[in-house]
Amino acid sequence: MSTIVAVDTRDVRFPTSLSLDGSDAMNPDPDYSAAYVSIRTDAADENAGLTGDAFVFTIGRGNDVQVAALDALRDHLIGQDAEALVADMGEASRRLIHDSQLRWLGPEKGVMHMAIGAVVNALWDLRAKRAGQPLWLHLSSLSPEELVSLVDFRYLTDALTHEQALAILRAAEPGRAERIEVLKREGYPAYTTSPGWLGYSDEKLARLCREAVEAGFEQIKLKVGADLADDIRRFRIAREVLGANFPIAMDANQRWDVAEAIEWVNALAEFDPAWIEEPTSPDDILGHAAIARGVAPIPVATGEHVQNRVIFKQMLQAQSLQVMQIDATRVGGVNENIANLLLAAKFGVRVCPHAGGVGLCEAVQHLSMFDFVAVTGTMEGRMIEYVDHLHEHFVTPVVVRNARYVPPTAPGGGTEMWPASLDEFEWHGSHAASEGTDASA
Amino acid sequence: MSTIVAVDTRDVRFPTSLSLDGSDAMNPDPDYSAAYVSIRTDAADENAGLTGDAFVFTIGRGNDVQVAALDALRDHLIGQDAEALVADMGEASRRLIHDSQLRWLGPEKGVMHMAIGAVVNALWDLRAKRAGQPLWLHLSSLSPEELVSLVDFRYLTDALTHEQALAILRAAEPGRAERIEVLKREGYPAYTTSPGWLGYSDEKLARLCREAVEAGFEQIKLKVGADLADDIRRFRIAREVLGANFPIAMDANQRWDVAEAIEWVNALAEFDPAWIEEPTSPDDILGHAAIARGVAPIPVATGEHVQNRVIFKQMLQAQSLQVMQIDATRVGGVNENIANLLLAAKFGVRVCPHAGGVGLCEAVQHLSMFDFVAVTGTMEGRMIEYVDHLHEHFVTPVVVRNARYVPPTAPGGGTEMWPASLDEFEWHGSHAASEGTDASA
Repeated sequence: MSTIVAVDTRDVRFPTSLSLDGSDAMNPDPDYSAAYVSIRTDAADENAGLTGDAFVFTIGRGNDVQVAALDALRDHLIGQDAEALVADMGEASRRLIHDSQLRWLGPEKGVMHMAIGAVVNALWDLRAKRAGQPLWLHLSSLSPEELVSLVDFRYLTDALTHEQALAILRAAEPGRAERIEVLKREGYPAYTTSPGWLGYSDEKLARLCREAVEAGFEQIKLKVGADLADDIRRFRIAREVLGANFPIAMDANQRWDVAEAIEWVNALAEFDPAWIEEPTSPDDILGHAAIARGVAPIPVATGEHVQNRVIFKQMLQAQSLQVMQIDATRVGGVNENIANLLLAAKFGVRVCPHAGGVGLCEAVQHLSMFDFVAVTGTMEGRMIEYVDHLHEHFVTPVVVRNARYVPPTAPGGGTEMWPASLDEFEWHGSHAASEGTDASA
Repeated sequence: MSTIVAVDTRDVRFPTSLSLDGSDAMNPDPDYSAAYVSIRTDAADENAGLTGDAFVFTIGRGNDVQVAALDALRDHLIGQDAEALVADMGEASRRLIHDSQLRWLGPEKGVMHMAIGAVVNALWDLRAKRAGQPLWLHLSSLSPEELVSLVDFRYLTDALTHEQALAILRAAEPGRAERIEVLKREGYPAYTTSPGWLGYSDEKLARLCREAVEAGFEQIKLKVGADLADDIRRFRIAREVLGANFPIAMDANQRWDVAEAIEWVNALAEFDPAWIEEPTSPDDILGHAAIARGVAPIPVATGEHVQNRVIFKQMLQAQSLQVMQIDATRVGGVNENIANLLLAAKFGVRVCPHAGGVGLCEAVQHLSMFDFVAVTGTMEGRMIEYVDHLHEHFVTPVVVRNARYVPPTAPGGGTEMWPASLDEFEWHGSHAASEGTDASA
């Protein structure tokens, strides 16, 4: 037996705004940040020294609030029996999500919900490390019954019941071993957003498009929505470099109202966009549905800001999205993302996760790989976003080879950062180590 | 000219769980709390000493996270020209809500959004005090153009445009002076939730029902959803005491899934409920719409947990609610609640605000009174929730006479608490002044 003895939190910020990496129509100057949590136990056996590490991704200011929310969960963890806690992750998640007083701060949305998600992810990291398996493989080794026990079906049963979820998972059970081999051999498809940030020059855009093709990517994404003439010029450059049939997605980062979205997207339709991402408020289920009807056959993609499974459920019910973009640190952690994957499977919608930021690639790849092995059994039309930023800060950084995510082999959820990175980029109102890079002062 | 020189925050918690006041199907033991903010300036003129005070209402644990979110806004306020800031409250609100980095934590939902709402409300409190007017009267003295400038129409224009909002306000302009007199003479209708908490005995329920009638209330509300047999028994007691035609609303506090809600409400239909409140997740627009269809003609009421105007917009578009329950501290403050009132007016839905808790009655009455004077011009079917708790901690406590809210006459938004109350109930991991009342330890 071992007990949780410490929940360490850190406010970590990278001064990415200096390079305009990550700039888009709504986020002109993000400082990619992590509200980081590390759970320690007093294990003296073979689990000695193993920690559960995870984080919430933010873009700078407010990362301290996110850390305060992690701190508020400490009392729920300290003194708990670590074995019992990680052995029943469904219950571990529900105890946090249904704390009746904390629930008032959401429910199940925003700062408090993301903090709970990070703690849930940290517990999964600990459990997978103890099991000696990468998280995707660990999840893929659970029975359909165990997987369904992780899901909180409250507010879902008008769209997905316990029995329906079980049926989906049971149907995928026979081919698991074979698909694990496929995954190890072929990896999981990636697409890249690196060329498309608004802050880049036309020359840099063209160069990065060429480099994306050379690297083997089969889709890129452009940020749009700030200025239509600019968007047309940048899309034309990308088309010229990439050719007529190369998939180019576009991302408006919530910039538009409904009518404007329909008009703007249709003005770019001649460039044959692969999808339009986040055309409007992530809360606007009916708005996305109206946009989807208004821009068809261009698919609508959204999800990186979708707060929980209840919004995803409705977006599927209303046909608001044709591409579902789960995010590893927006919702209530692995558990709620399993609910999201099951909802997508039930409605037959493909999932192409949001990634980039800090560590989002490292985290979310496990969910897509689990989905392929144990939920949908297919990679058809699926791909994980990839941005080549900040991976060096992770103990087990993502490996992308020939534009495909290589399945991680190291035990854990991939979300542990190097102590040296935590120290160097910890924020104390400024970067102690490098005052000159204080980008949000 | 004066400058903002301090933004003081306090974590204030009342040990209400000891008495089971406020107990319902989802919130068994709330400790009513306030994340409190007070904005001070260096004014040396007639405004010397006037502060802008407001708060976010929470129910205990997590109030510290809410305070951290208020603290995170300090840099946006300190050093600002107070006159300029409060003179353009539309811009003041937008600067906070559209901070591109803080926005990532929502957008416009949860802890960060409520903190912004409290700061916006504190600035309104300061402005109304400086104007020497109670907030409801101050808002009712603004021109339609000024009022519309307060509203953020982003994501609303498919349901309510700037021009449509202006037309609503202009149509109500002629009768303002007359309605102010009506309000002063008659007050604004109230209903009471005091009898209905789940934790109360049957005898206490019956006694409080009798007292509600004697006090002149024309509606009461029962908490339901924990146990159907209990609900039937308690509803029968209330009906026996109150008679066949007395309006009795019921409130499930998000307890059910869609099918369960329809079944449960219809099982209580024989008692002729005045409305069913929060039958399911506050995020579930389509679920509420299905429930509304399934329990008609019983009206569906919701809103105390509706995170922003985008969700309210959709609930109106989808006919998810027949009674809209705005809350003074859930959304982005007075500004976003003006948007909510205008949306309700556009769709012809009555607004019956959520109140109770700590100071919610004090705060929200100003919005209903403003709505009567300057937006809809009617009190028909409208009433403000009233719970007789914790009013003594406010400098200008709510006055309810003959079961009607008496329009406040003191300058400000009603949200300033007594320094002695702040000191006595400030939370430092426990109540310094009274360790024995530490209800959430």
